Amino acid sequence: MRIPTIGIGVGPNCSGQVLVLHDALGLTEGHRPKFVRAYVDCFQLLQEVLSRWATDVRKGAFPHHKSPIDFLKAFAIDSRTGPPVIQRDRRHNMQTITTVAELRRVLARARKADKRIGFVPTMGYLHQGHLTLVEASRAQTDVTVVSIFVNPAQFGPNEDLSTYPRDFLRDQELCRDAGVAIVFAPDVQEIYPTQFETFVEPGELAKPMCGAFRPDHFRGVATVVGKLFNMVQPDVAFFGQKDFQQCAVVRRMAIDLNLPIEIVTVQTVREPDGLAMSSRNRYLSEEERRRALAISRGLFAAADKFRLGERDVEQLIAIAREHLNTVDQLQYLELVDADTLKPAESPLRRTAALCAAAYVGSTRLIDNVILPLSTP
Amino acid sequence: MRIPTIGIGVGPNCSGQVLVLHDALGLTEGHRPKFVRAYVDCFQLLQEVLSRWATDVRKGAFPHHKSPIDFLKAFAIDSRTGPPVIQRDRRHNMQTITTVAELRRVLARARKADKRIGFVPTMGYLHQGHLTLVEASRAQTDVTVVSIFVNPAQFGPNEDLSTYPRDFLRDQELCRDAGVAIVFAPDVQEIYPTQFETFVEPGELAKPMCGAFRPDHFRGVATVVGKLFNMVQPDVAFFGQKDFQQCAVVRRMAIDLNLPIEIVTVQTVREPDGLAMSSRNRYLSEEERRRALAISRGLFAAADKFRLGERDVEQLIAIAREHLNTVDQLQYLELVDADTLKPAESPLRRTAALCAAAYVGSTRLIDNVILPLSTP
Repeated sequence: MRIPTIGIGVGPNCSGQVLVLHDALGLTEGHRPKFVRAYVDCFQLLQEVLSRWATDVRKGAFPHHKSPIDFLKAFAIDSRTGPPVIQRDRRHNMQTITTVAELRRVLARARKADKRIGFVPTMGYLHQGHLTLVEASRAQTDVTVVSIFVNPAQFGPNEDLSTYPRDFLRDQELCRDAGVAIVFAPDVQEIYPTQFETFVEPGELAKPMCGAFRPDHFRGVATVVGKLFNMVQPDVAFFGQKDFQQCAVVRRMAIDLNLPIEIVTVQTVREPDGLAMSSRNRYLSEEERRRALAISRGLFAAADKFRLGERDVEQLIAIAREHLNTVDQLQYLELVDADTLKPAESPLRRTAALCAAAYVGSTRLIDNVILPLSTP
Repeated sequence: MRIPTIGIGVGPNCSGQVLVLHDALGLTEGHRPKFVRAYVDCFQLLQEVLSRWATDVRKGAFPHHKSPIDFLKAFAIDSRTGPPVIQRDRRHNMQTITTVAELRRVLARARKADKRIGFVPTMGYLHQGHLTLVEASRAQTDVTVVSIFVNPAQFGPNEDLSTYPRDFLRDQELCRDAGVAIVFAPDVQEIYPTQFETFVEPGELAKPMCGAFRPDHFRGVATVVGKLFNMVQPDVAFFGQKDFQQCAVVRRMAIDLNLPIEIVTVQTVREPDGLAMSSRNRYLSEEERRRALAISRGLFAAADKFRLGERDVEQLIAIAREHLNTVDQLQYLELVDADTLKPAESPLRRTAALCAAAYVGSTRLIDNVILPLSTP
């Protein structure tokens, strides 16, 4: 006669074995009997939660400003407007973190809980382009990390490092509203401590176009992105197509250095009139802002001709150049193979990118359009 | 009169606010009042733990094989043989893996099971020095990975890449006997596919000594070790002190690129007569083997004098140099600061390393001794 038995701590020859919930959750301290399977270490988790709460109370961060009083107000009936419409609060608990150690600690927990981590590296002064990257990340991952760090290593000695626009509090608000889980905002010492000396050196992809005019720029980009990748260890990272060459360099770096990170390029977000969004647009005077439009207009004109069948490289470049005469200095206008960034061969047979960099006043702007062809 | 008050959900104007533990832990489903601060989402965590447990039960993975019954059996006394001698089986299932994808797959499983991963990167042709690294790894971690890869990027055009000694089957046996869990033996295409072009570029530490004689050597080392680190993602990696400058470059790289990996340097293993173990020793003829002893003898002589109190840099170098006259070419003999690798200042006040590289016949050998001082 077979009698089903359920045991506890007596091995697999029973029909089943009891697992005490507290044990499964790791809620016990110290020695765990061999027959217990803990799926998480809640004991440690609990200690951490309580110590954080205690810290918050001590530094006055709990209770916080967005108090229930404000909350109750939302239910108060205003005699003039009638009952309020109650909206779901998207202003969740966003964390701002400034050290690598704390970032790792918080993300280790997320990773342990099998959360997919999305990463949007930025230099701050966020605009809709950045927020579109955040949206893409939120759609594909569970935890979105945005870094805000103006990276000295990617600025040349005569470039705009010191004047690069910054507005951290506004960035924080935008991130919170956009549903970002973690804003990582380290200072320069945290990223480049005094003895720092190891760089990530990209290769051929970093040489043409921006690379030719900004020596060491992509070395700085590859190094900081590589470092940030190692700090965040995201599953997916999101970059804007406006920085087309940067996307190519970063994607190559991730492959070459075996970083297990998917690199997603998100389409350039533009102002209604076509100007590619950029933090540097804020440098433009009203008059410069109008003339800056020449860049996207030129690229679009070439893209239109391409759609109508034009495949001649010289022709396509010439069309774009016509519009680009209102800028103050055209640094480059190149039609390159989208994979190798080498000059595209005429007639076009593989997907190419028409890329431009130009000064309008003292502001350097870049933009590009992709001319897609199904590669044979 | 001020009366301290504690409220719940009434805002920051009380002296304090109650936070219910269940709320802090996020143990409630659905809507969270605004005044609640959840530090973790235990509700979701709980669901996840329970669903994992349910999956384990359904697929028969809980209770598991290493049940208390098996465990108790080990202690059972057999009437014929007496009490069992419990031996740990060292000839376990070692895996040899050749692709990054497979390596990641296997290690992801180990990581999921909270195993600590130890890593010993080698160029194969293993000797007791390597095996000591394996021992160190086994003592500190749960899963030891040994990579065997002769890295072309660290050989100069006129160096011994093509003749570097190889014996993969013997290496495999040695690893198995030593209790290695995974031998990772990729081919060159797996590490450097055709489009590869991104390098890790070390800084000042890579310039003196070997760096001065082997241009790009440490770039090759930093790149391949960085890549291997990203493939294996170990908790700890082990390097032999014989390659002292390599240890410094790798340690710096791990810090600079924010690789969350502890770098452990293990003391040089020597032949009974003092010669530092090296795969390249096999190049030596019997006569050369005898003359090669001059290197360690010279270094030891200086170290002895140091122990007796000698702190003068020139003196210490001179003592070593006396012995080194039997080598065919002394490439360098330098006493450097152990941290910065810059020439040590006389008299010595900080830990220094006396490092030598010399040709014996056509074989280039390196060795070093540390002269330890407690840094003020």
